[in-house]
Amino acid sequence: MNKASAKDFEGIAGASAREALQPSSPIVHFPADQPLQLDCERELAPFSVAYQTYGQLNADKSNAILVCHALTGDQYAAGTNPVSGKPGWWHHLIGPGRAVDSDRFFVICPNVIGGCMGSTGPASIDSKTGKPYGLSFPVVTIADMVAAQLRLIDHLGIDRLFSVIGGSMGGMQVLEWASRYSERVYTAVPIATAARHTSQNIAFNEVGRQAVMADPNWCQGRYLDEGRLPRNGLAVARMAAHITYLSEEALQRKFGRSLQARDHLTFSFNADFQVESYLRHQGSTFVDRFDPNSYLYITRAMDYFDLAAAHDDILAQAFAGTQTRFCVVSFTGDWLYPTRENREIVQALNAVAANVSFVEIESDKGHDAFLLQEPEFFATVRGFIDSAARKMGLPPALRGQAARAAPGAGGAAGTSDAVAGAGASGVAGADAAAAAISSAAED
Amino acid sequence: MNKASAKDFEGIAGASAREALQPSSPIVHFPADQPLQLDCERELAPFSVAYQTYGQLNADKSNAILVCHALTGDQYAAGTNPVSGKPGWWHHLIGPGRAVDSDRFFVICPNVIGGCMGSTGPASIDSKTGKPYGLSFPVVTIADMVAAQLRLIDHLGIDRLFSVIGGSMGGMQVLEWASRYSERVYTAVPIATAARHTSQNIAFNEVGRQAVMADPNWCQGRYLDEGRLPRNGLAVARMAAHITYLSEEALQRKFGRSLQARDHLTFSFNADFQVESYLRHQGSTFVDRFDPNSYLYITRAMDYFDLAAAHDDILAQAFAGTQTRFCVVSFTGDWLYPTRENREIVQALNAVAANVSFVEIESDKGHDAFLLQEPEFFATVRGFIDSAARKMGLPPALRGQAARAAPGAGGAAGTSDAVAGAGASGVAGADAAAAAISSAAED
Repeated sequence: MNKASAKDFEGIAGASAREALQPSSPIVHFPADQPLQLDCERELAPFSVAYQTYGQLNADKSNAILVCHALTGDQYAAGTNPVSGKPGWWHHLIGPGRAVDSDRFFVICPNVIGGCMGSTGPASIDSKTGKPYGLSFPVVTIADMVAAQLRLIDHLGIDRLFSVIGGSMGGMQVLEWASRYSERVYTAVPIATAARHTSQNIAFNEVGRQAVMADPNWCQGRYLDEGRLPRNGLAVARMAAHITYLSEEALQRKFGRSLQARDHLTFSFNADFQVESYLRHQGSTFVDRFDPNSYLYITRAMDYFDLAAAHDDILAQAFAGTQTRFCVVSFTGDWLYPTRENREIVQALNAVAANVSFVEIESDKGHDAFLLQEPEFFATVRGFIDSAARKMGLPPALRGQAARAAPGAGGAAGTSDAVAGAGASGVAGADAAAAAISSAAED
Repeated sequence: MNKASAKDFEGIAGASAREALQPSSPIVHFPADQPLQLDCERELAPFSVAYQTYGQLNADKSNAILVCHALTGDQYAAGTNPVSGKPGWWHHLIGPGRAVDSDRFFVICPNVIGGCMGSTGPASIDSKTGKPYGLSFPVVTIADMVAAQLRLIDHLGIDRLFSVIGGSMGGMQVLEWASRYSERVYTAVPIATAARHTSQNIAFNEVGRQAVMADPNWCQGRYLDEGRLPRNGLAVARMAAHITYLSEEALQRKFGRSLQARDHLTFSFNADFQVESYLRHQGSTFVDRFDPNSYLYITRAMDYFDLAAAHDDILAQAFAGTQTRFCVVSFTGDWLYPTRENREIVQALNAVAANVSFVEIESDKGHDAFLLQEPEFFATVRGFIDSAARKMGLPPALRGQAARAAPGAGGAAGTSDAVAGAGASGVAGADAAAAAISSAAED
């Protein structure tokens, strides 16, 4: 139970570690003479950014949308994830005819540095030692992640992104982009996020880190060298975190006190309740796809994020003079990054007379709502993007033509199009929210 | 780090295990021919109930108040805890002149069965094997805990308790007492509690159990036999639970994003933030005083608790015909057992025309508020108790006389008085809430 089984090692040495070293997606390698300067005052070099794209970059490179993933996300935002065979984590939102329309836009989703899906992270090989970095990997920040993404965008020859969009930790990256590189961001859509972690946010992340580090198979971070895997610790971390992604109402509606495949309590420590079984499943499947050290590094980056800190603790100053158009989205049932924290971002933007619209989506699904089928949310994003595109003079989508070329047949800058030809979006009629905010986006 | 150190073993074989086997408090042993029938249809025999008392039982045994402790509480509710040397966990509330006045009442606080402070639990020696029970200890319920308490009350010769009072899991015991043994309970004060756990409550407890069981030193529950201790797992469990005891506001006010004894982030996994340091401390000190298996058993009892289940899922029926007077108390900042769950209890009591008053105390301290210095809460309890005592014709407190006799000098039924002669309560003036509810208590 404690020693990693052969299957465990196969797992980490197989799918996870393989993707960390040789991702199934495109990847850009930045050589040792092009180091990334990190906030911790160390350099990361060489480093790589793995990414996936959907749709085609237009001739004047004005239709690029950068999508930033959350804590445990990856570059496979849309279409089918080639590693898991499951739909991309934002496939409801991104694709042909969807709110983020890959028939019209060139969607780029990079894996964050510190992650484990191809961008350089603690499971990557340190060129100086020939071994996985482990804890010798530098502690990276949200700003470092964004700096690496900027290098990717430069590499793709894109001067200005039509939009940067992301939820949760992805939203933090959006805020960082808009604050630091405003001139390169036409619109920004931070979703279900915060400009800094509260004490409670940090507390939950710390529980997760302690759970990983308490597992003897963690081996002070050297588990890959030792052929072990802190499965139990990472599973517990995921279980605790998962509770924070769902609202109490959603859990109660979904599971209540229902028993798992039994009529009576067993008077044991088996998973009598469905919610126990569900959480255990969440924990154990997560371990198969995520690197434990990455979990430490990425949660640390979130805890360290504090956009106001470098601006005399005045968040508005982080956006002074911005020309970027913002659409801030929150969900009523989100207690991880509740509306009031999203509203603080809006208030800061208002304080510098930024162009900002704010939509609070009614949903009792908790923080996870930003990843789920939420028509009003989709309509909001669609309305904001369409309006901003009209304002910028971007032509409408070309249905069923270039954007649906055979995979590998085209795409600027050597990118691939992983989106299968899906049907039109199902939210065409749900555009009340879109109409409500379109004027703001076009101002 | 993983093998229990000599100190760990000293710890568990020392203070914790010693208290589990030979508590510093009075204890009643029920021999093998007086088994406790458990909900799981097993018998617990022999079994013991360790308890502490404060004040003196009066001649007609009408002044007894039973205090029920929460998950990690113990029998040392007031005065000084003889094991830790610290004040009892409800010393603000209970003592001479306090809201639960030990100059007037005979206060009894038993350790729950399944616990680890002297009442029979998984760390107790199984007389059949001569070894600690470990996981062979039966899964007990809140009703089982109360049934054991009933045996103690019978042993003390008390027909009717003037009151049963408890918060959190203690409140569940109060509800169980009032439902099952209403004729033996004159008044009941369930505080910051619920008639059953929600899915989210179960989820958090399951994370804690998985954290303990994930620790290889848990040894499938046989760690005492093996001379090991699942310190790390229990510490993580406590950390996760502790977050649920505090409100987000309280954490933010107390710690915010303040750094721990440093000026700058260290770009490491040290406890940079005060809240991290605080949580780690909560985890590590808890391990010194609590048995990991008891943590499993007691959280299980809480998850299993569902007062309505045995009454066609209609909570009101659990209180049908009750003559007990109730005072239900909740706290605004409590998100573990929020006001709406306490209100469900009130509504059920109203549905059977029970005598019930309900007070929601304004506090942003979270669930822990019931253990903290909350004058309005104290005044509420004082007012309710004083009014009910007047109604019943109980004489007022005799200050500085019998109740302050030298320890061991008196007390009915071989009990001891562990309360030092403290000064009068500091909440004498804060009786607005008391006045507001006194009429309800006297009706």
